[in-house]
Amino acid sequence: MSGGGAQSAAAPAARPGAVARAAYPNALRATVDAYLADMRFGPPSGSTRGLEEAMHYSLLAGGKRIRPVLSLATARATGRDEHEVLPFAAAVELIHTYSLIHDDLPAMDDDDLRRGRPTNHKVFGEDVAILAGDGLYAEAFRHVLVHQEGAPGDVLRAVGELAAATGVDGMVGGQYLDVDGCAPDGADGLREVHALKTGRLICASVEGVLLLAGAPAAVTMAFRSFAAELGVLFQIVDDILDVTGTDDALGKPRGSDERHGKRTYVSEHGLAGARELAAQSHRGARAALARAAPGSAPELEQITDFILTRQD
Amino acid sequence: MSGGGAQSAAAPAARPGAVARAAYPNALRATVDAYLADMRFGPPSGSTRGLEEAMHYSLLAGGKRIRPVLSLATARATGRDEHEVLPFAAAVELIHTYSLIHDDLPAMDDDDLRRGRPTNHKVFGEDVAILAGDGLYAEAFRHVLVHQEGAPGDVLRAVGELAAATGVDGMVGGQYLDVDGCAPDGADGLREVHALKTGRLICASVEGVLLLAGAPAAVTMAFRSFAAELGVLFQIVDDILDVTGTDDALGKPRGSDERHGKRTYVSEHGLAGARELAAQSHRGARAALARAAPGSAPELEQITDFILTRQD
Repeated sequence: MSGGGAQSAAAPAARPGAVARAAYPNALRATVDAYLADMRFGPPSGSTRGLEEAMHYSLLAGGKRIRPVLSLATARATGRDEHEVLPFAAAVELIHTYSLIHDDLPAMDDDDLRRGRPTNHKVFGEDVAILAGDGLYAEAFRHVLVHQEGAPGDVLRAVGELAAATGVDGMVGGQYLDVDGCAPDGADGLREVHALKTGRLICASVEGVLLLAGAPAAVTMAFRSFAAELGVLFQIVDDILDVTGTDDALGKPRGSDERHGKRTYVSEHGLAGARELAAQSHRGARAALARAAPGSAPELEQITDFILTRQD
Repeated sequence: MSGGGAQSAAAPAARPGAVARAAYPNALRATVDAYLADMRFGPPSGSTRGLEEAMHYSLLAGGKRIRPVLSLATARATGRDEHEVLPFAAAVELIHTYSLIHDDLPAMDDDDLRRGRPTNHKVFGEDVAILAGDGLYAEAFRHVLVHQEGAPGDVLRAVGELAAATGVDGMVGGQYLDVDGCAPDGADGLREVHALKTGRLICASVEGVLLLAGAPAAVTMAFRSFAAELGVLFQIVDDILDVTGTDDALGKPRGSDERHGKRTYVSEHGLAGARELAAQSHRGARAALARAAPGSAPELEQITDFILTRQD
């Protein structure tokens, strides 16, 4: 376990990009990476090899794996072995990858670079990129429904939450509000876009693990409050980094939100205002976590601090 | 019940488009239509109304509802009330609708008409059409996972089969082989494309209902054999109608397979050869059905005959 421990409990300075990054639970990330690298899709005939290559290109492009690592860290915070929830965690990452591929399409954000490499449709063509996204979404559900252990009723509830979090009252609805620009004006509208687009899947990464364990509703709700605030923090920092980050660290040209005419926490509140909101949100997430898992969630604390101070 | 009865057991003449259509279990279709028309998606705020409109545009565009009607007919053939499997049947139709929207996209088949109306992206734009498909797929899983009654383990297996049937070793893989033209040459390659692209979802419409009921493996396999042959029949007739149908009946210009350079049962076997294959496949499906449900499946017999003689 690299750096997972109580020493991470001190909150870092509250200025994203301006301080050293907090430690990250890299052992959990390595567990996720190894599991994802072993996943296979498609018929034994091998005829869909080209499609699977496109899926793996984006799935194995690196990244912090924040969502599945959150799932594993939540399992540990609730006294379970993190390996027990790997099928669920992998499904979350497949879904996140699918959303990135579709968001990058020419008809959507029309982005050429992602994590420093050409986007999926630039390499494989638009038709294959659309299908690679569709395939990752299907394989996420197949994988978790077939391989996740637990009481069947608990698995149903966890996967049902994953579907809801990525549907119209979740990720897809948020992406619609984002590309169509039809969210209500002001801070409330911005908050709704991001609660749907990124917040709900981050929430489901945590909440799903509680549902898998059949945890009491009060415990599930306490973790959900933490995860909801973490989702807000994630998005504020994302918006800040789009302005302050370097192209190298971001893996794409900075300023893309402004070029796309997107409303962000920076466009609504200014850079200093957004930083203050990030600091508030970080304090709120740590407080919610302390209530949900008093003294027993070092990896979740690490992730919370890391999200505030991340630079890519 | 319109026309549901043993009088449909006589097989119709074996020439698609050349004989009167066999009767169809329209009462089951009406049950499906009413259920689909009542489905709602999206957050209570109503902010995603535009996306939901695009989803409903394609979902409520009519059509025979062959897949969900198969699910309901299978429930009746196994002694259950058809209403018990409506959430599963609806999920199948949402998934079918999503696949049509994505298949029609400019980057895929680039079709302008579907069921006599402009395709989804012609009305709502490519970005919204992609998201309408993504949203229908997510809402299919959400709906069946949250609303389908049954033993949780049975529901898990049925929905797992639905995910597998629509993944890379299923519908998405088949669409990849179709647009990329990389299936093996000859009749085997053609059969693989269609077994994946259309066959597996038709199979899942039937098999899922057996899984939901926790039916013994031998019974499930017998129905699966029937459904697999029905899927082959469906595709052969589809290929024939693309050559012999009228634009009005098809709801799109005929000959689109040839214009897209697609391999079909007609391009591989000629029109007469394809008709002979359809007749063989119809006999095979009826024989498999007689083994699976001896004397107790009038609606499934009707659907089998209808698929041979349909004209749109």
